Amino acid sequence: MNEVELLRREERDVSVWDVEVDVLVVGYGCAGVCAAIEAREAGASVLVLDRAGGAGGTSISSGGFVYLGGGTALQKALGFEDSAENMFRYMMAACGPAPDEALIAPYCEGSVAHFDWIVARGVPYRESFFAGAHEPFDSDEGLVFSGSEHVHPYNEIATPAPRGHAPRSIRDKGALFMNKLIASADAVGVESRFQSRCDALVVASDGRVVGAIATTLEGEQHIRARKGVVLSAGGFIYNDAMLERYAPMLRQCKHKVGTENDDGLGIRLGLAAGGEAIRMESGDVSMAIFPPNSLRHGIFVNHAGQRILNEDVYFGRAGEIILFHHDTRAYLVVDDDHYDRPLNFPVEIAAVGESIAELESELGFPMGVLQSTVSFYNEHAAKGEDPLFHKLPKYLTPIVKAPFGALDLSSEKLVYSAFTLGGLRIDANARVLSASGAAIPGLYAAGRTTSGIAKQGYSSGMSLGDGSFFGRAAGRHAAGPLD
Amino acid sequence: MNEVELLRREERDVSVWDVEVDVLVVGYGCAGVCAAIEAREAGASVLVLDRAGGAGGTSISSGGFVYLGGGTALQKALGFEDSAENMFRYMMAACGPAPDEALIAPYCEGSVAHFDWIVARGVPYRESFFAGAHEPFDSDEGLVFSGSEHVHPYNEIATPAPRGHAPRSIRDKGALFMNKLIASADAVGVESRFQSRCDALVVASDGRVVGAIATTLEGEQHIRARKGVVLSAGGFIYNDAMLERYAPMLRQCKHKVGTENDDGLGIRLGLAAGGEAIRMESGDVSMAIFPPNSLRHGIFVNHAGQRILNEDVYFGRAGEIILFHHDTRAYLVVDDDHYDRPLNFPVEIAAVGESIAELESELGFPMGVLQSTVSFYNEHAAKGEDPLFHKLPKYLTPIVKAPFGALDLSSEKLVYSAFTLGGLRIDANARVLSASGAAIPGLYAAGRTTSGIAKQGYSSGMSLGDGSFFGRAAGRHAAGPLD
Repeated sequence: MNEVELLRREERDVSVWDVEVDVLVVGYGCAGVCAAIEAREAGASVLVLDRAGGAGGTSISSGGFVYLGGGTALQKALGFEDSAENMFRYMMAACGPAPDEALIAPYCEGSVAHFDWIVARGVPYRESFFAGAHEPFDSDEGLVFSGSEHVHPYNEIATPAPRGHAPRSIRDKGALFMNKLIASADAVGVESRFQSRCDALVVASDGRVVGAIATTLEGEQHIRARKGVVLSAGGFIYNDAMLERYAPMLRQCKHKVGTENDDGLGIRLGLAAGGEAIRMESGDVSMAIFPPNSLRHGIFVNHAGQRILNEDVYFGRAGEIILFHHDTRAYLVVDDDHYDRPLNFPVEIAAVGESIAELESELGFPMGVLQSTVSFYNEHAAKGEDPLFHKLPKYLTPIVKAPFGALDLSSEKLVYSAFTLGGLRIDANARVLSASGAAIPGLYAAGRTTSGIAKQGYSSGMSLGDGSFFGRAAGRHAAGPLD
Repeated sequence: MNEVELLRREERDVSVWDVEVDVLVVGYGCAGVCAAIEAREAGASVLVLDRAGGAGGTSISSGGFVYLGGGTALQKALGFEDSAENMFRYMMAACGPAPDEALIAPYCEGSVAHFDWIVARGVPYRESFFAGAHEPFDSDEGLVFSGSEHVHPYNEIATPAPRGHAPRSIRDKGALFMNKLIASADAVGVESRFQSRCDALVVASDGRVVGAIATTLEGEQHIRARKGVVLSAGGFIYNDAMLERYAPMLRQCKHKVGTENDDGLGIRLGLAAGGEAIRMESGDVSMAIFPPNSLRHGIFVNHAGQRILNEDVYFGRAGEIILFHHDTRAYLVVDDDHYDRPLNFPVEIAAVGESIAELESELGFPMGVLQSTVSFYNEHAAKGEDPLFHKLPKYLTPIVKAPFGALDLSSEKLVYSAFTLGGLRIDANARVLSASGAAIPGLYAAGRTTSGIAKQGYSSGMSLGDGSFFGRAAGRHAAGPLD
């Protein structure tokens, strides 16, 4: 049996502080760098620790998207209508059940200004709309539908507006985004120490977090944080034991989106100081069988041969539904006119048939179910209709050209990409909340250490989005007057 | 904003103990009474606190079932074959994903002896098998299939054996069960205080739980627990805020199985002392449209007109699948030959039609989907087959006799019954585990304060089952030598 981790120490047991700063930031990804910039610009002295050898965290190798709207400069320049209310409607419909209105509302309200802030830090955006779905992997265009805003059912709930803001670079968009922010932090005098692990938070007798104990290259350091500690240390996709206990379905996903430091330490530190971790079962699950978009002319069917959702959704929504509700026992059925090799990941063809009857027989389905599914689909697709799932007309064509294929969507065969979305509960000031709903004085968190704006219905850019947005909130509030 | 709850106090801040006992038990339901009996019989002095005016908790008004197997005296007397291995196979298949093997294995191994122990405490069982499904609401028969052991897919995974052990009483089985145990506790000298709330655990500087602070009828009491504290205070189905944060889908269920004291206090106390709460999204969800069993001749369809599972499953499995995977947007389609009024809860008929075509039109389904579903089902049912979901042949009859009806299974219309299954993580000795996997010295938990043997695939009797079983383990271990 392991020893109890001592993730919390009492202030009265600390005799000497080795280092004193105003704000201590734990983790130098997008949430951490934004917290550091804001705190420093507000006059606080700031130290950022990271276990890695340099800054960037998972964000630096990410797609670089930020999910923003409400009428950003880029949306306006490209002629897209949006408003904070419209964005709020989409997010409250997509990011549930029980989407966190206390975070989503300020996020939508502050989105336009947040984009301006990012641009002011030097991140460049090309004023060009990427019409593909859902990521400009080979383009430096700046704006894209990075979620399911333009497809059913969301296109009936809110006016579709593209909100994926991608930095101007064909490759390494995440590096461009982060390097600009890191340079901004350096420019304003943020200090940092790498290969430095926060081992414990130091808590005063009244519950206030007053510092941390860290293992650094100089040995164990007691670091006093006069104004606050910000936990921005990532999620737990690299902690198999935590996944098993909290989010076992995510273990099926072969591709972990994160670094090995995404082992949940930030969450566990927050818990030890009295925080609450919520929605720990949640995750972003990408099932990137598209592009090519020609495959969207096919249909997703489950192991009972039933069609299960509109195939034009964002790959995160498809992955989430197929993993959590169908245990990935599903296929993409496509005809010869629309088959093309998926670009992102290798795919296995589960069955091929000269007829749908032969295909369903090859798949081991009871005879008739898939034929009935395809026949119903074809009858309506021929009229440009999809009464069951309302796929966009541009992808609606009857499945008629032999041979027919069924691509295997099982997690054993196909690469699902996942990261965790559960974590510490925070308020709009990024203060970590206890179970009673009270903020823990001196303790902040942002990014994947928290349960943020998306619990389901993740869209590309929501993680850099809430990480940077609430990271800034944490830095501002921590640098302000003590609670 | 609320104040931070002070659910944890330091031992050095306690100057005087008002009461001293060996083992303090928080909550007098089935887990608490079993912990108390075992600890007392092992020689420990025991005090049980409960917020209610008397003993019993939720258990006393429950169905009284205990889920046991492996060849119990009752199973043997009635000629049913079972073994610990066979029971283990069922539970590992049904109670996942990631069923807790560390709890399920000892539970299966210890099941036969646990039944003998219950009988020895005076709980009577009639040696008679109840052939209905799934609960003998109007019978005092002793053994029943209280889960989905005998239906697909579990009947292919393990040899079906009935494991629902019901006390001999037509009504108030839970009261019979609990009153015998409470009388046993009284007989061995367990002390109790009611209207007494545990406000905080007292923790020593080395992390050991050494007592509690409680508000009792005598005022605030500092209670030293020389050997340990057992948290057996129920789940959180009556705490809407916790449901919203952890298990929002359960809020749809109109019937809360619990008492108002199931507000999660036991879990929050354990968290404050360094424990870990896992699988907090889980719940038992009963959708008791049956009996009458004639309705099982109908088919469950979702809002796309697709059949979704075999209709012979335990009502907890049906509820879980229809709530968590179909958002309760589902119907039971039945013909005139098999319609009968559901006995448990009022039901609303969403549509009636002289033909399936008329029915689907009334339901607002796209024309053809339900006809195709029923036609496929009928074709095979006529041959006694169900190639999609493998319902038992006795419920397979074509849906042919007009008028046809669709019973509304939405949670707005139908009563779903729910209680929470997530909670503190424990080991086989019912010791509360921290995130590192280490046991917190002096702290135990059992019953719905914990994440127990069932995270999904709940069967009737699993909650009294793991509550009583690991309650006993807690009492035994707490009364033993200090860790």
